[in-house]
Amino acid sequence: MLSDIDISRAATLQPIQAIADKAGIPADAVEPYGRFKAKLTREHLPVPRDLGKLILVTAISPTPAGEGKSTTSVGLADALNRIGKKTMIALREPSLGPCFGTKGGATGGGYAQVVPMEDINLHFTGDFHAITSAHNLLAAMIDNHVHWGNALDIDVRRVVWRRVLDMNDRALRDIAQSLGGPANGFPRESGFDITVASEVMAILCLADDLEDLEARLGRIVVAYSRDRKPITAKALKADGAMAVLLAEAIKPNLVQTLEGNPALVHGGPFANIAHGCNSVIATRTALGLADYVVTEAGFGADLGAEKFFDIKCRQADLKPSAAVIVATVRALKMNGGVAKADLSTEDVEAVKRGGVNLARHIENVRQFGLPAVVAINRFPTDTGAELTEVIAIAKAHGCDAIVCTHHADGGKGAEGLAKVVVELAEAPSQFAPLYDDDIPLFDKINTVATRIYRAEHATAEPSVLAQLKRWEDAGYGHLPVCMAKTQYSFSTDPAALGAPTGHSVPVREVRLAAGAGFVVAICGEIMTMPGLPRVPAAEGIRIGASGEIEGLF
Amino acid sequence: MLSDIDISRAATLQPIQAIADKAGIPADAVEPYGRFKAKLTREHLPVPRDLGKLILVTAISPTPAGEGKSTTSVGLADALNRIGKKTMIALREPSLGPCFGTKGGATGGGYAQVVPMEDINLHFTGDFHAITSAHNLLAAMIDNHVHWGNALDIDVRRVVWRRVLDMNDRALRDIAQSLGGPANGFPRESGFDITVASEVMAILCLADDLEDLEARLGRIVVAYSRDRKPITAKALKADGAMAVLLAEAIKPNLVQTLEGNPALVHGGPFANIAHGCNSVIATRTALGLADYVVTEAGFGADLGAEKFFDIKCRQADLKPSAAVIVATVRALKMNGGVAKADLSTEDVEAVKRGGVNLARHIENVRQFGLPAVVAINRFPTDTGAELTEVIAIAKAHGCDAIVCTHHADGGKGAEGLAKVVVELAEAPSQFAPLYDDDIPLFDKINTVATRIYRAEHATAEPSVLAQLKRWEDAGYGHLPVCMAKTQYSFSTDPAALGAPTGHSVPVREVRLAAGAGFVVAICGEIMTMPGLPRVPAAEGIRIGASGEIEGLF
Repeated sequence: MLSDIDISRAATLQPIQAIADKAGIPADAVEPYGRFKAKLTREHLPVPRDLGKLILVTAISPTPAGEGKSTTSVGLADALNRIGKKTMIALREPSLGPCFGTKGGATGGGYAQVVPMEDINLHFTGDFHAITSAHNLLAAMIDNHVHWGNALDIDVRRVVWRRVLDMNDRALRDIAQSLGGPANGFPRESGFDITVASEVMAILCLADDLEDLEARLGRIVVAYSRDRKPITAKALKADGAMAVLLAEAIKPNLVQTLEGNPALVHGGPFANIAHGCNSVIATRTALGLADYVVTEAGFGADLGAEKFFDIKCRQADLKPSAAVIVATVRALKMNGGVAKADLSTEDVEAVKRGGVNLARHIENVRQFGLPAVVAINRFPTDTGAELTEVIAIAKAHGCDAIVCTHHADGGKGAEGLAKVVVELAEAPSQFAPLYDDDIPLFDKINTVATRIYRAEHATAEPSVLAQLKRWEDAGYGHLPVCMAKTQYSFSTDPAALGAPTGHSVPVREVRLAAGAGFVVAICGEIMTMPGLPRVPAAEGIRIGASGEIEGLF
Repeated sequence: MLSDIDISRAATLQPIQAIADKAGIPADAVEPYGRFKAKLTREHLPVPRDLGKLILVTAISPTPAGEGKSTTSVGLADALNRIGKKTMIALREPSLGPCFGTKGGATGGGYAQVVPMEDINLHFTGDFHAITSAHNLLAAMIDNHVHWGNALDIDVRRVVWRRVLDMNDRALRDIAQSLGGPANGFPRESGFDITVASEVMAILCLADDLEDLEARLGRIVVAYSRDRKPITAKALKADGAMAVLLAEAIKPNLVQTLEGNPALVHGGPFANIAHGCNSVIATRTALGLADYVVTEAGFGADLGAEKFFDIKCRQADLKPSAAVIVATVRALKMNGGVAKADLSTEDVEAVKRGGVNLARHIENVRQFGLPAVVAINRFPTDTGAELTEVIAIAKAHGCDAIVCTHHADGGKGAEGLAKVVVELAEAPSQFAPLYDDDIPLFDKINTVATRIYRAEHATAEPSVLAQLKRWEDAGYGHLPVCMAKTQYSFSTDPAALGAPTGHSVPVREVRLAAGAGFVVAICGEIMTMPGLPRVPAAEGIRIGASGEIEGLF
């Protein structure tokens, strides 16, 4: 079998203007970045009359066995195009930093990829670099304000805005800054997160347009004053310059699938401390151009789909029509207690045991009023009996499960899935978010914990509850919550696979993302700056004799 | 008078492919970045037969009055095109960070600009972001190597590779990193420089091609072992991944002048701790396409031109044909002791007093075997008597001085200058660097100090001399030196204007840039991470109601 990068390279890409033509995008709206990438200027796009149907691809709880959510998204979009539905896909941009650690790209796999994969996985059109610049400009302006007299009375002990780099660099997690004497400012503790964890990233992905972007940037709370009042980016007069730095980044990026279908790849917020899906602007642009839009949320449905529904769809007033839950036999077996080394051995009982995970995700998606279908991303080692068992589990929960082979066969391998998706999506959407805006913040956390994670309850120290209360008093009580917990379990214990019950969800810390428009509830240890492994992938990455990149994936 | 940005916006830009056509660049070699920018792939360019003539634009010692070196470079290139010489200009890319501090753009001014100026001054084609990523990947790999066992026995007290950001941020000049416990590595002191100060920037600008780039990256010395052996980027296996990150950045960027002439804007190393001129690749590409190539060096001729000759031309085997020394009446008056507030009052005696600065720069340029002409960048307040005095000073030193009005009149205002440049350049080049490769490092420093700065001698503590000796023993003795001193004076005292004599040049510190291929001699305080001023320009930068950027310049 060819590697993903070999398949990607063997493909003959179409000029990006041809892809734009196919999508009905006028030449005026296309700003080329090289031959196979472009940014779209929305003011030049046709005003949409009927909006396309929005299909969310989500998954069971992730395991090291891999599920293939991006791959399935691409395969499904190609399949929908094959069966005559004009379809675009909207995906997240991959983060540069982890490419040099252990993680491969995030552009699908096999014959279900978006291309050019090297470009997309590296600098792409510079969006993440622009976010890094905007984020760090604000950071510099905070310390600069304090240095020159601190007219806003910023409490330097309560600066909550860190810096970011798109790099895996554990050495920057915790630093002491402004050392070296008075010319360098007032020493304080600080640190760096990876760029995808920046609130600026979340803002870019939730903004309606450039105007809304600037307004959201202005609302970012960067610090508190000595009398505990929130200090915003607008008070520092940083919002305008940040918006200028992001003026190109906010335009969605057009690329193509291996089958030559249009794909928008735009924005990539973390799926733990942020909402984990591509930009609202890309999704809306696609909905204005296509009959069907396939999009993807991060991690499993407990995290990614819940945030897609409760944060993105709520804020952007999007009405998804159906959900696809990606599962693999291998991942269900891991959820059923099989070790990674033993996954190639048939074990129907393990599939059955692990099936409780799939069942719960199906039930959860239904709570949002959405019809669902299970996509079984087939691996060569899957047996007929195992596949039959997955189909039975889904059926028992009122849901079709379709065996898909898009990794090996491209869109053709997902046509069965596409047909079911169309059936489901033809019915009017009954979508609604899980909770109302006007219940207290902690009740929102508790609603997700009990209804999605199936915990007994959420818990929090009095100091956390007091913080939530202060934010409610300051006018942030209407915001949705963004849960940051392990992606490996419904609980906060990454080892509790399957469908745990009887647990509680302890909220360790809460953070306000006033610009993005949510309150982050941190449950357990969440890493916002990854490190490199003992042997980083970077050591094997180089430009080969043929001029092609080696070792990237 | 219209502002630079108003003039820039009022211009009708030609599509970048039209500019490429004019320059004789085939469509295959053009990778568009939007409509008015492109990267050039050199393998698709025609193989040059005769190389064009290379014209260096340099200047007298800079003052707050401004000289207009970039403006004169653009005006001269437009003028050469007007008088029938096929001419390209090769300039540095501006740094993003300082745009938000006090500095305006670096794309010329008035009717002598390269455009689109907002793009060029902001993210442009992402080159500086790529350099930031490559630099910081190496930094992360150093700490990661130590964290996972330190097989190379890196002495963490002797890590000389800092991190970079393209931002003015004094808080990052000196930091303590890797705090927070064992998972974050071994705490040590460190800090950030601005991206233009990165050795990766200097390397990108001196590399012949991608292969040479990777080899140079591999030679970077990042630290010393406990037994004082240099540890290189190659030993850390970082060179390949860094080259991959820079594979797009190394391609020169094509833009246009306001008069529609082709301009390559590529690379922008600091002119103090680095050599301060655009990439060798851009200069060579232009020389292969045009009859004349106008390029520019940083600061005054004592720093910028000397490094252009002794570092860039030496390494790349370039033979410049003539030098243009930009002077203004105002700057000469400041060199003659007039305060900035009084510069609009006629003062011929002050011009005469300050003229010693111009005279010495003329003499210095001649030491490299190059014919020179003085370009007087005319300001509205200059009087006839003052201009006559400048012409007389130049004449007394065997050099024409031409009054230029390209700021107000575009290329037409520099036609007189262009004609003299052609006359000078028609003679065969007698160019030679100032010193030979094989003299000791300190003798090289002393040669520049005595022959260019006209000091009595250079001095250094025994520890500095011992360090130079160790590098000579380690095989770095053949490298040229890169002098880092104040740009405001021939001496190391920024207040000593004019043409000081009798001074000495104390070398405070030396740094090895083994990848770039020079040894930096730091004389006096050199700031490698600027700060923001009390009221940063960022506060006034925003996207206006018309959708155009306000406050950037």
